[in-house]
Amino acid sequence: MSTYAAPIKELQFVLEELADINAIAKFPGFEEATPELVEAVLEEAGKLATNVLDPINYSGDQQGAKLVDGKVQAADGFKEAYQQFTESGWTSVNFPEEVGGQGLPFLVQSAATEMWNASNASFALCPLLTAGAVEALLAHGSDELNAIYLEHMVSGNWTGTMNLTEPQAGSDLAAVRTQAKPEGDHYRIKGQKIYITWGDHEMSENVIHLVLARLPDAPEGVKGISLFLVPKYMVNEDGSLGERNDAYAISLEHKMGIHASPTCVMSFGDNDGAIGYLVGEPNNGLACMFTMMNHARLEVGMQGVGISDRAYQRAVSYARERKQGTAFGHEGKVAIIHHPDVRRMLMHMRAMTEAARAISFMCSAAHDIAHHSEDADQRNFYSRRLGLLTPVSKAWCTEVGMEVTSLGVQVHGGMGFMQETGAEQYMRDARIFPIYEGTNGIQANDLVGRKLLRDRGETAGEFIAELREFEITLESHFEEGSGWRRGFSEALNAFEDATHYLMFSGNEDPNAASSAAFNYMMCMGVLTGGWLMLKSAIAARAKIDEGDSDTFYSSKVSTAQFYIEQILPRALAHKTAVMSGADSIMAMDADAF
Amino acid sequence: MSTYAAPIKELQFVLEELADINAIAKFPGFEEATPELVEAVLEEAGKLATNVLDPINYSGDQQGAKLVDGKVQAADGFKEAYQQFTESGWTSVNFPEEVGGQGLPFLVQSAATEMWNASNASFALCPLLTAGAVEALLAHGSDELNAIYLEHMVSGNWTGTMNLTEPQAGSDLAAVRTQAKPEGDHYRIKGQKIYITWGDHEMSENVIHLVLARLPDAPEGVKGISLFLVPKYMVNEDGSLGERNDAYAISLEHKMGIHASPTCVMSFGDNDGAIGYLVGEPNNGLACMFTMMNHARLEVGMQGVGISDRAYQRAVSYARERKQGTAFGHEGKVAIIHHPDVRRMLMHMRAMTEAARAISFMCSAAHDIAHHSEDADQRNFYSRRLGLLTPVSKAWCTEVGMEVTSLGVQVHGGMGFMQETGAEQYMRDARIFPIYEGTNGIQANDLVGRKLLRDRGETAGEFIAELREFEITLESHFEEGSGWRRGFSEALNAFEDATHYLMFSGNEDPNAASSAAFNYMMCMGVLTGGWLMLKSAIAARAKIDEGDSDTFYSSKVSTAQFYIEQILPRALAHKTAVMSGADSIMAMDADAF
Repeated sequence: MSTYAAPIKELQFVLEELADINAIAKFPGFEEATPELVEAVLEEAGKLATNVLDPINYSGDQQGAKLVDGKVQAADGFKEAYQQFTESGWTSVNFPEEVGGQGLPFLVQSAATEMWNASNASFALCPLLTAGAVEALLAHGSDELNAIYLEHMVSGNWTGTMNLTEPQAGSDLAAVRTQAKPEGDHYRIKGQKIYITWGDHEMSENVIHLVLARLPDAPEGVKGISLFLVPKYMVNEDGSLGERNDAYAISLEHKMGIHASPTCVMSFGDNDGAIGYLVGEPNNGLACMFTMMNHARLEVGMQGVGISDRAYQRAVSYARERKQGTAFGHEGKVAIIHHPDVRRMLMHMRAMTEAARAISFMCSAAHDIAHHSEDADQRNFYSRRLGLLTPVSKAWCTEVGMEVTSLGVQVHGGMGFMQETGAEQYMRDARIFPIYEGTNGIQANDLVGRKLLRDRGETAGEFIAELREFEITLESHFEEGSGWRRGFSEALNAFEDATHYLMFSGNEDPNAASSAAFNYMMCMGVLTGGWLMLKSAIAARAKIDEGDSDTFYSSKVSTAQFYIEQILPRALAHKTAVMSGADSIMAMDADAF
Repeated sequence: MSTYAAPIKELQFVLEELADINAIAKFPGFEEATPELVEAVLEEAGKLATNVLDPINYSGDQQGAKLVDGKVQAADGFKEAYQQFTESGWTSVNFPEEVGGQGLPFLVQSAATEMWNASNASFALCPLLTAGAVEALLAHGSDELNAIYLEHMVSGNWTGTMNLTEPQAGSDLAAVRTQAKPEGDHYRIKGQKIYITWGDHEMSENVIHLVLARLPDAPEGVKGISLFLVPKYMVNEDGSLGERNDAYAISLEHKMGIHASPTCVMSFGDNDGAIGYLVGEPNNGLACMFTMMNHARLEVGMQGVGISDRAYQRAVSYARERKQGTAFGHEGKVAIIHHPDVRRMLMHMRAMTEAARAISFMCSAAHDIAHHSEDADQRNFYSRRLGLLTPVSKAWCTEVGMEVTSLGVQVHGGMGFMQETGAEQYMRDARIFPIYEGTNGIQANDLVGRKLLRDRGETAGEFIAELREFEITLESHFEEGSGWRRGFSEALNAFEDATHYLMFSGNEDPNAASSAAFNYMMCMGVLTGGWLMLKSAIAARAKIDEGDSDTFYSSKVSTAQFYIEQILPRALAHKTAVMSGADSIMAMDADAF
């Protein structure tokens, strides 16, 4: 059996060497984020993940969440785990101290988020959505509303949900129909929402729904949706919980994975109408929603990272134990980790996981800098960078999640297909990540439409310029003509070509942009991963040169080398796809498919 | 809801234009395979697949096979479906008339096999394994044994199984421990086998197990395993069924997919020892096993094709119905098939499915020619070609199956993750194809070790030479510098470079060969698909030039163009991975992972 081991050394390496947490810790308010504290946080989070969340991951999948007598019952052990989780303060890491948070960088929270998702993705969704709701209230909620709700949500005593989707309104929020009628100081909400993650449960005292709905006089389309806070239990003036609000989970979905995370159909106002409160300005729900959504997108990227690492760890554990066949250079029967093709799969899993982690944490660092730096130019620069990388982080890291978890099954051979092995659960769980919080196709179109074309290529140009500077620094680290330098330069050239192509043809032909968007996003993802893997290799070599003989560093270099040789060349294939244009994609009539 | 539509026109196109069935039909014994008969066979198979097998696919997944009182119960409707299947003669299509077969080409059988797997992969496994057992008996069984068993198996009255794997012996058959003790005219078999597909059921009167075991004096390793026929029910001298043999399914696996296909733990000889009969020579079990296995590998490749087509059809159906958002050039809300990124996914699914089908059917054609041509040189040539392409067909087509079924989920958005939609079942079912009948890593090592290096590159050289000749013929079909020609030439150059690299370094360093094998196989698969997609485009254009205005042909050309532009460039990335060598893969100590 494989037990989750929190990758503390790796997390510290990424935080320090790539994401420069020590610089972030110098921003006002982050004084407490000393290296010692960060290490302690990582270790404590790792313990909870290993000892509490990982052991109920498989049983949670097998048992699933259930709807019994109109109430959602979490799988065995989840309520107790949630209690430990909140008591240890894990819901409040990166929130401001004014609302009961610990005021630590989002980067630190991100490392913990990876561990929650590695050990138990179903569980991790509950605090993930609560955090999104907290972000939305912090940014848009009135002081009165926040005074009542925020501290309870930051403490995790109350959890939060995101209610966007309706049966006829999936990716297209313009089609939202849920109604909100003004009534005194509140509104009455009526409508049905689907795919509501942790929409109901008994792990916390209250559930706070953030719900997109339309006011009676609202304009059509996305400019007519507003955001409402709808509590499961009303809150009395003294802060105690009052009557049950008219907001119920009426059924649970039967899903491919994340069985322990209840995905609810929520009915608001089947009886008198659910009482709700406006968050932010009327008809400005989309902006509020994007606050939640952008936060959630970063965290979904981390879900891809976490589950990849867990799938990798399980595969390594099996490959070390399972004896089968012989291998060159070894006597007698060997553990399959000695077979070159098994090693290829493990290295592939390892390299992609490390690259995805690096991208994901660079986004978290950008988030911290954009919000906390004292230098306005720096804040603006990292705000743009974050906007550019958010869709890449969400989409590429979740594509990695699918690829890595599938390889995890393959390493196990026939055993991988058996549920009891545990490998296939990761693959089923990971399959939702590229879909929710905006499908990866939508991420790609966000990247190309908003972040590249509408931005006239400015932020992408900044990014390419930084990578060109980095390319020059490679000269002092790697020999001319070495695979390291050639691989990076070819991939960077490919990305720059693809960028120029889209800047030109994307403005001429909207179909060229949107049909190429996914490959462009993948090209950028694999290149960004390559850049950060090279940075990692350089930092690791420096440690080795300083005399540090920990195999962690030599492994880092080998993994980066594998990535540059075996994965980065995909950038060229994606570029060719981008630059082939939309003709073959748009040619066929819908009837001819 | 999506109903399976047998792709009759497409199947005919591939059989006629690529696999040249009309030439095969001229071989002795295939006189009956007239175009009219083939068309009738395809249409009847299509009807059975659509009307009988497809409707019980989802319910079979939900219900699963069950072990009740020591007997395996198939899911509802499976027994009746199997009866219709055998009554219509679908188990006997390509077997010789002497044993009750219809004597049609394997190519025709293959088209039917695709449809069984498209509509119901769990069901299709039962006749698939029976056919493998029949092949083994035809090649190795004694006349006495075959006289008793063959006709019943060809008719489908009795089904067959393959019993290779033991808990300690998965891919490594040298570790097989099951014992066979001589006793008069038979043997007593004792041992446990795992992962036995359709190892027990009540759909047929008898189940005939082909079991690998060791004779008492057998040498160690693979040279000491023999093949035995072990019937579930003994056969009396008059041909009637006698006593229950000591061969029982003692448990069923809980799997990720193919739930309706019972995967049994089989216990042989828990009581007196199961009575078995030697098939072929003592200690020659491996050769017998490879007869079954090579057959099964081709059919598993077709499983990848079939499930890809079904996933594609379901995705197209959803994309035509689901209205969401707006699209450039369309008024108001559009069906999502009009969104360029959705079209990209559908084209990707379509193109990969067509390429995989073409490869798979070219193998079936090679099989027919290798066995039935009157020209010994031609038989030898296609026997070599079949050997070269079998691992590519099994591995590449099943990798395609995973990629396409996953995209099928993605096209559905959130709905794709819900079981009731049906898309996720294909992805779960398809996940076993790259594992069983020799993992894709083993296929890749078979390709590089046996088919390339041990062959000293002769057969691969013949293949490259044929593709070089084809490259020249492209000059008369496509303009110089066009994407079509450039794409093919670049991919062919990449494959040739990778081949030369492996011929050189693979002989120097076994790790270089086996760590590169998977990427070499993928390079060859994507190139072979490109070659056949180009052939298809040329044939389709010829039809268009002849005045045929069926959109089938223009779609064929668009799909081929998509493949050349968006998929074929992967060949270069695979080549780079191959030629990067084994260093980064072999560098880390097992403990450092």
